[in-house]
Amino acid sequence: MTPRIVALGGGHGLYATLSAARRLTPHVTAIVTVADDGGSSGRLRNELDVVPPGDLRMALAALASDSPQGRLWATIIQHRFGGNGALAGHPIGNLILAGLNELLGDPVAALDELGRILGIHGRVLPMCPMGLSIEADVSGLEADPRMSRVIRGQVAIATTVGKVRRVRLLPNDPPATPQAVDAIMNADLVVLGPGSWFTSVIPHVLVPELAAALRSTPARRALVLNLVAEPGETAEFSAERHIHVLSQHAPDFTVHEIIVDASRVPSETERAQLRRTAGILNARVEFADVSRPGTPLHDPARLADALQGVWLRCPPPESAAQQATVPTPIANGPRGDDPWR
Amino acid sequence: MTPRIVALGGGHGLYATLSAARRLTPHVTAIVTVADDGGSSGRLRNELDVVPPGDLRMALAALASDSPQGRLWATIIQHRFGGNGALAGHPIGNLILAGLNELLGDPVAALDELGRILGIHGRVLPMCPMGLSIEADVSGLEADPRMSRVIRGQVAIATTVGKVRRVRLLPNDPPATPQAVDAIMNADLVVLGPGSWFTSVIPHVLVPELAAALRSTPARRALVLNLVAEPGETAEFSAERHIHVLSQHAPDFTVHEIIVDASRVPSETERAQLRRTAGILNARVEFADVSRPGTPLHDPARLADALQGVWLRCPPPESAAQQATVPTPIANGPRGDDPWR
Repeated sequence: MTPRIVALGGGHGLYATLSAARRLTPHVTAIVTVADDGGSSGRLRNELDVVPPGDLRMALAALASDSPQGRLWATIIQHRFGGNGALAGHPIGNLILAGLNELLGDPVAALDELGRILGIHGRVLPMCPMGLSIEADVSGLEADPRMSRVIRGQVAIATTVGKVRRVRLLPNDPPATPQAVDAIMNADLVVLGPGSWFTSVIPHVLVPELAAALRSTPARRALVLNLVAEPGETAEFSAERHIHVLSQHAPDFTVHEIIVDASRVPSETERAQLRRTAGILNARVEFADVSRPGTPLHDPARLADALQGVWLRCPPPESAAQQATVPTPIANGPRGDDPWR
Repeated sequence: MTPRIVALGGGHGLYATLSAARRLTPHVTAIVTVADDGGSSGRLRNELDVVPPGDLRMALAALASDSPQGRLWATIIQHRFGGNGALAGHPIGNLILAGLNELLGDPVAALDELGRILGIHGRVLPMCPMGLSIEADVSGLEADPRMSRVIRGQVAIATTVGKVRRVRLLPNDPPATPQAVDAIMNADLVVLGPGSWFTSVIPHVLVPELAAALRSTPARRALVLNLVAEPGETAEFSAERHIHVLSQHAPDFTVHEIIVDASRVPSETERAQLRRTAGILNARVEFADVSRPGTPLHDPARLADALQGVWLRCPPPESAAQQATVPTPIANGPRGDDPWR
């Protein structure tokens, strides 16, 4: 029996989850952030009314069939035009998606059609059927450290030298892609992260219909933490702080398990603390070897093993609920100078 | 039994031939001019090292499968980006071909791959594996009508208000695409034209290996004349003059039949004269109803009937050879103020 897996995220983090999930099942649905405003996606958004295609294209490539045609088209859509003209730097797949979207008038239909050419295992969906923006409250940019400034745009937020406190989607409370809600509700396993925390992971729980689906789905739910703190938006963030900021943005959000690379938290003291923090999300922590040795990347086979573990531990064992001393969820808990960074 | 048909041309004229040929056989090979320097193709040539994709894309669309996928992708590749940015006006198919060409390093492989997605009936090949330019001697642009001026570029030639006397390819004597030569040699029926005479039809006979293949192939060979004289390069050209200028550019070129729309040459006097002129190409003339009533366009079904006739009249009947009083081919015959315009 093969599970239905839904992976939420964006960029390289989602690519890693999808590369793992496809090893377990052909039934993989990627739900992808749509707030990218940089690079080729940013240029296309400036020019056309299009859901930013870059992260969607990456997800399609991650799920492409292993057939010669699937591999060829995965290479094709990822290939970036050379030269130094108007096309330079655009991946072909971004242009195909933009064109399909313009022609078909529906980003989901565009993704399904290009997915068919790639023979993908599953489906790629935007979290919202239109492009969004992200806005962040960032401190540390002013002389007065208590002052925060509003920074707008995914690239600007991801690369800020300040400290991101909170992010919002613009427009607020956007609609979810209906097929994405359905996929979450019908999943056996839902995986959030890894990825750029404020700009690829947290945006999903800021879409009300997705947040509601994540609360009410009967699926097993896992959160995959990043292997290392990314420079920029989460520079020097601890594992605990990743959990806290997520919880702050989605007070009722819970998962069954948090997958943490064992090498990131080697000492038992730290692990005990992380288990306590995980209680905020009502989660047990699974310390697993999920990285590719010598790299800051998730290893698809190892991550697949960890995800399979989450799914197989269904229903959650008694021990999981007892493992952590569950504190009262911090609904609008510490923001700003919290100690978990 | 279905014939192997090879159609040489470019642009809308070739689209018409292919739309007809596909009704007769799944074995259609399009051999396409590669000198376009206008519109999207011109922009792409300026930016990337690419065989101009526009006419190739049109040929792919003409041969696309009738399946839902074939029809959808024919629409997709023909769709032009909107907006007013860097992509505006580019057909998606041109960008896909340019990208495939850049990635695969081979225009034939690029066309075969996109052709596979479209499920095309046959194959689309560039006449030469690299982009070319066209140069023309044009008179009527100076105060002295005997003076001619060199005009360079397909768009400039196609739209000149002067009188085109002769065209050349740059570089001279380019190589033919090997697969195009093979297709001609293995064809049952080879069709040249209709199309922009100086810029889509004549260029084929200026490629030495194609001209040699056209001379030596055992296939039946047909020339399809344009329904009306195009404005610009062949404004006010008579049917005879089309035949003469082709012959001037390819002294040894012959065909078995010339297909002429019956309504273009209604009087028997004119027909007799056209039959005599056709002798230059060693051809009989087939007057047939090949236009779509009320339009200046070839009707695919009617043109298909006419092409089938050429093929079925194989071997050429005695009467064809006797029909015209064959004059000595005018190897380097009248140029300039010849009377057939």
